[in-house]
Amino acid sequence: MTLSSFFSVAAVDGAARTGLVQTARGAIRTPAFMPVGTQGAVKAMLPDHVAATGADILLGNTYHLMLRPGAERVARLGGLHAFMNWRRPILTDSGGFQVMSLAKLRKMTEEGVRFRSHIDGSEHMLTPERSIEIQGLLGSDIQMALDECTPFPATHDQARTSMELSMRWALRSREAFGAQEGHALFGIVQGSTYEDLRSRSVGALIKIGFDGYAVGGLAVGEGQAKMFDVLDIACPLLPNDKPRYLMGVGKPLDIVGAVRRGIDMFDCVVPTRSGRHGQAFTKYGPINLTNARYAEDLRPLDAASTCPASTEYSRAYLHHLFKAKEYLGPMLLTWHNLHFYQEMMACMRAAIAEQRMDAYAAAFEADQELGEAEDPRPEANQE
Amino acid sequence: MTLSSFFSVAAVDGAARTGLVQTARGAIRTPAFMPVGTQGAVKAMLPDHVAATGADILLGNTYHLMLRPGAERVARLGGLHAFMNWRRPILTDSGGFQVMSLAKLRKMTEEGVRFRSHIDGSEHMLTPERSIEIQGLLGSDIQMALDECTPFPATHDQARTSMELSMRWALRSREAFGAQEGHALFGIVQGSTYEDLRSRSVGALIKIGFDGYAVGGLAVGEGQAKMFDVLDIACPLLPNDKPRYLMGVGKPLDIVGAVRRGIDMFDCVVPTRSGRHGQAFTKYGPINLTNARYAEDLRPLDAASTCPASTEYSRAYLHHLFKAKEYLGPMLLTWHNLHFYQEMMACMRAAIAEQRMDAYAAAFEADQELGEAEDPRPEANQE
Repeated sequence: MTLSSFFSVAAVDGAARTGLVQTARGAIRTPAFMPVGTQGAVKAMLPDHVAATGADILLGNTYHLMLRPGAERVARLGGLHAFMNWRRPILTDSGGFQVMSLAKLRKMTEEGVRFRSHIDGSEHMLTPERSIEIQGLLGSDIQMALDECTPFPATHDQARTSMELSMRWALRSREAFGAQEGHALFGIVQGSTYEDLRSRSVGALIKIGFDGYAVGGLAVGEGQAKMFDVLDIACPLLPNDKPRYLMGVGKPLDIVGAVRRGIDMFDCVVPTRSGRHGQAFTKYGPINLTNARYAEDLRPLDAASTCPASTEYSRAYLHHLFKAKEYLGPMLLTWHNLHFYQEMMACMRAAIAEQRMDAYAAAFEADQELGEAEDPRPEANQE
Repeated sequence: MTLSSFFSVAAVDGAARTGLVQTARGAIRTPAFMPVGTQGAVKAMLPDHVAATGADILLGNTYHLMLRPGAERVARLGGLHAFMNWRRPILTDSGGFQVMSLAKLRKMTEEGVRFRSHIDGSEHMLTPERSIEIQGLLGSDIQMALDECTPFPATHDQARTSMELSMRWALRSREAFGAQEGHALFGIVQGSTYEDLRSRSVGALIKIGFDGYAVGGLAVGEGQAKMFDVLDIACPLLPNDKPRYLMGVGKPLDIVGAVRRGIDMFDCVVPTRSGRHGQAFTKYGPINLTNARYAEDLRPLDAASTCPASTEYSRAYLHHLFKAKEYLGPMLLTWHNLHFYQEMMACMRAAIAEQRMDAYAAAFEADQELGEAEDPRPEANQE
């Protein structure tokens, strides 16, 4: 990637920025939310509908795809974009996080991590070099350096040892990636909740030099306050001319708070996973459609939403779909939630451009915490 | 329904007919295939996409809907059409067939059938009058008389007793329905595989008088040859100016054969259920996408199909989706199969209008039985 053209900031409002990340497959408007397409598909969504919600980029999971259908197979089939019928950019993670959370019989060494597949028990080795090779075979537009996601909580010693390994792997990832016109490589800041370690990690990554910088090791149980503390440490140290990506985050208020601290990119399974389980995000906070109070609620999911999943169906119908375990329930609620997230991102981009991000965030947070009025009909609250 | 306007035949070719069934919610082009929306949703499909395949009418299942969400609730919520966001006509069955196949502790009497819900064990009574009441609460455009679907095989005595009960219930259904402008009621021919009983059943129904006539008690294990024999008996006895509906049928060659015998309407779970389990209907017969031979098959599902589910994805991708148990597999294959069925119906309507139904059927059957050429690449046949 020609670094000068990769990221451009159009406007700044406090620490928040709005701009464009440029890839060979198109531009990504920031702040950006990346829906998660773990196994080469955003669960319960047609790719056209994902794009129509306003998603400029998807995330694919290297761990899942290397095991099934296999990176070499995806390459033979023309790469991940053609395979899954998604023509816009794709960011892939390194596989490291999910090896640690999903694989069996993991053995971590300086070289990498040896593990057995959770699908068929087959043995695999993931090294920084192999991770970059796999991400290349997939045809990923933005690739991630292999790191170890430090578990939380960790002692200072544990966090330091883990971060230092990640920094050595970051260098090896950078060397394996080389220079690839039209593709980008991000490094990942580690160091748990320790200011000195986060600061040293940022320094080490900048010295190596990446097209963008991710903040990793968060959203692992530390809570929103500690997460924001880490962003308050890391973001000011990161170069202003490179995108900043907060991995695996989060709920709407996590994202708004992180944008205000200077984060440009996000990915999270929350909108899709919640949607499959009956939870919808709305202007006035999340609601759970499986609750009996919605059995005769003729209101749309969210009166403020323009998503067809919200405007064409009642809460009563969605409640029924989840009770009856119909595919259409997860399909509609996933769609609605992805639309909600992308609307939120679009509103933040506009607010930053117009220097009113603080006011937007305050109003958004107030609405989210307000909750909605109960349906006034008494019979609506019982099934 | 004003009977004179309900069904009009535009063209006849041998025993096959093409025409229009008129309802208050729009016209149904015949021969017509009705996708099944058992629980108020066509499984794994958006209503807009069902309509886009060319479906003019859906079938809803009275048994499922009376138990969940309940007919009175659907009525309070504005009727089934508004509830499920389907604005075209809906035909509902009487509930009788599924009471016998799904409910617990059934007790059949002259009055009706008492049973316990398979969902929560609650007790219900389905009579001809209650079935019509429920179908009215749902807002069904075409309603079915309550009958007993005679099991196969049945002795002549069993089949006669069962058919006679169904004819008494048909009369009670007719009386309960009365005259409803814009809505229609169909009677159901029973009598198992016995020519004399089928003939007597047709006579009894015509004497009562219905807006259309269904042939029931088929596709219950008797096989295609016996099913066609029954149609050869029943269709010529049925009035030419009323639509004929073959319930629960079927596979593509069943439908083509039945159209040639004078059937106008069909419903079946085959395209949707097969789609959820990885089977796709194609010009050259069904294929099972879970088969390892498709793991690297870059061809579309069916080169002859214009359905986005077929043109935008490879067999290799669909194979992966089913292996990975992604929602998108059933979503795409259901869509493809419904499109295939509606294309087949459209081709038959055109062939009948142009007096070439025999040639169409012969070519269709030859292609279906031909099967497709194997993928020439040796590596494509192993995973």
